Amino acid sequence: MSAFNKYYETVKHWWSSVALPVARPKWLNKLSPKFKKVPLSLPSPTTLIDGAPVKQEQSHACPNYMELKLKFRDIGRMNGIMEALGRDFLTAMPEGAYVSRLGQIAFMARRVHEELANQSLATLIEKSHTHEKKHNKQWDKWDSANLYEMESMYRHHCKVKPELIEKLAKLSYEGRRRHRDILKNNDWDSAKPFLSEMVTLQRQLAESKCLQNNKHKTESAYQALMRQYIPDGKLDDIDVLFDEYEKGLDKLLPKILDKQSKEEIPLPLQGEFPAGLQLWLNKSLLKVLGFDFTRGGLYETGHNPVEGGTPDDTRLVIKTSDEMNFLESMKSAMHEGGHGVYIQGLPRSEWRYQPVGQDLGAAVQESQAFLVEMILGRRKEFFDYLSPRIEGLFQRFGEDYMTADNLYRLKTRVKPTVDRKNADEVTYFYHIKMRMELERDLISGALSVNDLPDAWNAKVKEFCGVEPDNYASGCLQDVHWFVGKFGYYPAYALGHMMAAQFESRMTRDIQNLPELLSMGQFKPINTWLNDNIHAKGRLMGSDALIEEVTGRGLSAQSLLNHLEDRYLKSA
Amino acid sequence: MSAFNKYYETVKHWWSSVALPVARPKWLNKLSPKFKKVPLSLPSPTTLIDGAPVKQEQSHACPNYMELKLKFRDIGRMNGIMEALGRDFLTAMPEGAYVSRLGQIAFMARRVHEELANQSLATLIEKSHTHEKKHNKQWDKWDSANLYEMESMYRHHCKVKPELIEKLAKLSYEGRRRHRDILKNNDWDSAKPFLSEMVTLQRQLAESKCLQNNKHKTESAYQALMRQYIPDGKLDDIDVLFDEYEKGLDKLLPKILDKQSKEEIPLPLQGEFPAGLQLWLNKSLLKVLGFDFTRGGLYETGHNPVEGGTPDDTRLVIKTSDEMNFLESMKSAMHEGGHGVYIQGLPRSEWRYQPVGQDLGAAVQESQAFLVEMILGRRKEFFDYLSPRIEGLFQRFGEDYMTADNLYRLKTRVKPTVDRKNADEVTYFYHIKMRMELERDLISGALSVNDLPDAWNAKVKEFCGVEPDNYASGCLQDVHWFVGKFGYYPAYALGHMMAAQFESRMTRDIQNLPELLSMGQFKPINTWLNDNIHAKGRLMGSDALIEEVTGRGLSAQSLLNHLEDRYLKSA
Repeated sequence: MSAFNKYYETVKHWWSSVALPVARPKWLNKLSPKFKKVPLSLPSPTTLIDGAPVKQEQSHACPNYMELKLKFRDIGRMNGIMEALGRDFLTAMPEGAYVSRLGQIAFMARRVHEELANQSLATLIEKSHTHEKKHNKQWDKWDSANLYEMESMYRHHCKVKPELIEKLAKLSYEGRRRHRDILKNNDWDSAKPFLSEMVTLQRQLAESKCLQNNKHKTESAYQALMRQYIPDGKLDDIDVLFDEYEKGLDKLLPKILDKQSKEEIPLPLQGEFPAGLQLWLNKSLLKVLGFDFTRGGLYETGHNPVEGGTPDDTRLVIKTSDEMNFLESMKSAMHEGGHGVYIQGLPRSEWRYQPVGQDLGAAVQESQAFLVEMILGRRKEFFDYLSPRIEGLFQRFGEDYMTADNLYRLKTRVKPTVDRKNADEVTYFYHIKMRMELERDLISGALSVNDLPDAWNAKVKEFCGVEPDNYASGCLQDVHWFVGKFGYYPAYALGHMMAAQFESRMTRDIQNLPELLSMGQFKPINTWLNDNIHAKGRLMGSDALIEEVTGRGLSAQSLLNHLEDRYLKSA
Repeated sequence: MSAFNKYYETVKHWWSSVALPVARPKWLNKLSPKFKKVPLSLPSPTTLIDGAPVKQEQSHACPNYMELKLKFRDIGRMNGIMEALGRDFLTAMPEGAYVSRLGQIAFMARRVHEELANQSLATLIEKSHTHEKKHNKQWDKWDSANLYEMESMYRHHCKVKPELIEKLAKLSYEGRRRHRDILKNNDWDSAKPFLSEMVTLQRQLAESKCLQNNKHKTESAYQALMRQYIPDGKLDDIDVLFDEYEKGLDKLLPKILDKQSKEEIPLPLQGEFPAGLQLWLNKSLLKVLGFDFTRGGLYETGHNPVEGGTPDDTRLVIKTSDEMNFLESMKSAMHEGGHGVYIQGLPRSEWRYQPVGQDLGAAVQESQAFLVEMILGRRKEFFDYLSPRIEGLFQRFGEDYMTADNLYRLKTRVKPTVDRKNADEVTYFYHIKMRMELERDLISGALSVNDLPDAWNAKVKEFCGVEPDNYASGCLQDVHWFVGKFGYYPAYALGHMMAAQFESRMTRDIQNLPELLSMGQFKPINTWLNDNIHAKGRLMGSDALIEEVTGRGLSAQSLLNHLEDRYLKSA
């Protein structure tokens, strides 16, 4: 069985086991009558505005699928427009345009939803499936995967009320701005009503997204939310995986702390690192990583970092530099750079706006970010490349704290902290696990927003043995819930595991990886990532992709091995 | 008869005399069957996303009109989104996003068109008119004007093929970028096919916009194009007005040249004026003019200057500074600033996205730009304000060429030139007149694009007595035709006349205007402009507005008087 067939078996299984009745025609007919009324725009005719005809504009033997491709090209354009509006919101827009921009974004989100949650779209999908079954030879695997992803997008939207979509779009941008001020002022009183409103909205969204299995058992609201970010993610499997990893970690951590307690403490950075030079460094490192600045850029903002954009326009945003510590902004730039190179590597010329041309969701996105930021970007060899160059850039010839060895030890020092963003690679997982537990309880109602600060502090104490001094370093530290990302956190831990598993395969395929890193030669690495992951878009799901690339399903083992190698075996 | 009723009589006359049959129901039923098929999105429900409920979201006694208001709110949002995409295109977008952005903009333009060129919209308009007639007391003048403007927008779109709209949107942005390179390289060979394509497209557009009068005489294609920019502009009237002005000008010019030939030649600027300081100066002058930077900004670009934006987000764009001459970038900033203050002063809180909340088109727009740039911004008193400050800013204490008197004489020196942008205030009109004649011939077919360079050079010779050395300083100098603006040029001359007529009234209402200018006190001027022009949006047409504000219809007399005062009477 080919990898693709395997994938297709998996996804078929996924829908049939969790979704409504197996026979699709019936399912599609069961659409809420609400959506039957939503009218549908005629597709734009094929135009060559975006250059030569590409797969998405090439005619297909199935006219219904052809119509779908044109519809999804328009939906993709609308999503691209929303990305551009959002990027402008964060980087260039005058403050006074805030309210009207919220309205524009909410309006666009609703329009996209109306295009998707649509009876005639469902009919086209159904008819295309029939054609695919009957004339299987006329469908190549990209088109089949594309059709499947169309259906998946449709299903994500079909039962959601447009008002909720509009509200979410508005609240998520409002939340980004609010969080900036709330964090600065340690302002739990303002956070509380906003988060309550957001949790209620998330529950309403989840309820309309919940699927039933064949025995009409409804999945949990949290599972439904999580699937928005991690399409292949099944909560039960993730729980097993996380338990396995946590057990391994609980054994490793004391040994690591013990080992490091006997080692010399790394020297702290000294003096100031001008923000302008930091930005230059970060842009230059992105170039080294293979990021294409003709199709993107790196920006600083007062907001939290944001990944995203489109393959044609990938504008990365990081927080304004801390002049005392260039490693902070560098870490952010490397992380966003991992996302950025993935986005730019998607199959844009052929499938620019089609669902199959998009990324595989948050877990795979984070795998690319962690691979660059943590797995490769904290290897000793990378600091061999970096050290002499930053001695020059920041005019610090011969300073002990600028040596590759010291930088490596600074970035691999393990110490439980109260905040996720400054967490080391080893204890990072605990931050994810506790957030996942808290957000599950918030969504299920087992935890009320009122009780969040206490619950948060108790969890940090339980997992990390430390306690935050205030709200800002406690439950207000992350932007995720403020922008409506409930169910996203697991993607970080899954991504970390995937990154380690990809890297273990990559080091077999690229045998001089350490030497390449020490010379800043990312090209073979990028080629490998592009061939194996980026250029595949959504040709297969993440589970199938991992199996095809690494020869086995996702497990915690590679990451545990990686931690053991880096933190226990090295001198 | 109130000014509003007068206006309404005018517009009724306008439609009935130029449009298809008077009885509207018939007219509306005569829509091309093509548009009957275009489906219509349901209006979004009333949401308070943009803050407190405003007129556009307040319910109205006529439910059909209420539905129209919500539809036009969405159309307004789409236009706002296109503005944001366009501004980003010019200022921040990475080069590689060029092609996909063209696609996004063309897509949005088509969507806006589809919302407008729509049978159900026509029906709503018709029913609202019936309601307005029957229940006249339930309609205030803003609502009536809004309904009229809705109809006007509908009529602009109803017969145009969506493909043409899509093509125009794409070509106009492509043209902006192409013109930049064509100008740099004096590249007529590249310009020729592009302009030919544009002229053909404009003709096709014009044909579908042409109106017939009651005797079924069709108006000219050029008239139809011009009406896009100058809604009240009737070509026959404009021809009379321009002839009148030209005659006056032909008499004035020799006298002015003679007078100036006897005066001392103004001293040229010396040394460099750093670009950063110029940008600071221009931003500061915009603040002095009353431009609100919390709702806008000033940007430099390699492209041509652009006015526009929305009242919430008015980002002005000027060309990168010439370091040898700060007066150049200042002129551009003052001109765009005039546009910007107008846009920001539109009735945004109540009518943000409604047609009645928009500006009155290009001629009134240019009147505001010319008022600031030429009429007020070249008064001796303005240079009294400017001179000591720029002596400090550019570190030129006591230099003769920085005195108010010298700057005034520099900016009022009259000398026929080959290019419009460096033209003085007196000979500026000749540049407009010749362009108008040429574009009329291009659209009618009397002139082919092939013959344009020769025809252009002959016209410059005829009007200004000089000849361009190359294409770049000849027929390629302006961006207008490259971005599809055929029929726009008359707006400059009309705007200049309006500006003079407004100013003659303003100096009666604000008696210490010269003193205010010499102190940089623009507040009373802005209040006057806002009360009399900006805050009125499209409550009345430009003809009615001019009559209401100045007590008489537009004529060339105020401008001729102004030129005589400034160029012949002063010492």
